[in-house]
Amino acid sequence: MSSPDPTTTFDVFSAACPSREVMQHITGRWGSLTLSALAAGPMRFSALRRRVDGISDRVLSQTLQRLEADGMVVREDHETVPPHVEYELSDLGQRVTGSLLDLIGTLEGAMAEVMARRG
Amino acid sequence: MSSPDPTTTFDVFSAACPSREVMQHITGRWGSLTLSALAAGPMRFSALRRRVDGISDRVLSQTLQRLEADGMVVREDHETVPPHVEYELSDLGQRVTGSLLDLIGTLEGAMAEVMARRG
Repeated sequence: MSSPDPTTTFDVFSAACPSREVMQHITGRWGSLTLSALAAGPMRFSALRRRVDGISDRVLSQTLQRLEADGMVVREDHETVPPHVEYELSDLGQRVTGSLLDLIGTLEGAMAEVMARRG
Repeated sequence: MSSPDPTTTFDVFSAACPSREVMQHITGRWGSLTLSALAAGPMRFSALRRRVDGISDRVLSQTLQRLEADGMVVREDHETVPPHVEYELSDLGQRVTGSLLDLIGTLEGAMAEVMARRG
């Protein structure tokens, strides 16, 4: 595998830039909640599903696969019987999730204002 | 209009919480790019459409209406002939967009790493 070219510029505003696809995985309906849930530490699939209220098994599974392929999440199989698999944030996932948590904090803190506006 | 109850707690992890809907408007495919584009200052519809590469007139129009209803964007009609309408971030929109820009910066900076991982 060749090392990445550090001079390449990525721009989410450009429709053809691959960063836009990853942006959608990270900020999408379920990706953002899955990453944010994992900020609390490694979790099993079943615990994640309970935390991300409303997600289905199938969608959580797809979401985790995408985030793993993007390098945001690491799947750790402890190779025990019965199986014990956990998901956790990579270093990159932690950096990205830090900004997501800021965003969520700002939003939750502003919701009273948003609701009042809507009347 | 009654003032918001500051003791109400909002939680994006709860499927029924209204914050989840707003979260989707903000972080969604087009909402996030529209807000981020407006971080540069007030813009006309046509300039926004050029900046958010790939968005259609219809979708940009819907996106702006939603962000306006959520209190993130202000539509300013200068009431001139010919019409001169601009969109800009509200104070709340600026706070939310700050976190979005951090997220985009982290992502764009990490894309070489993401691409290398994908091989």
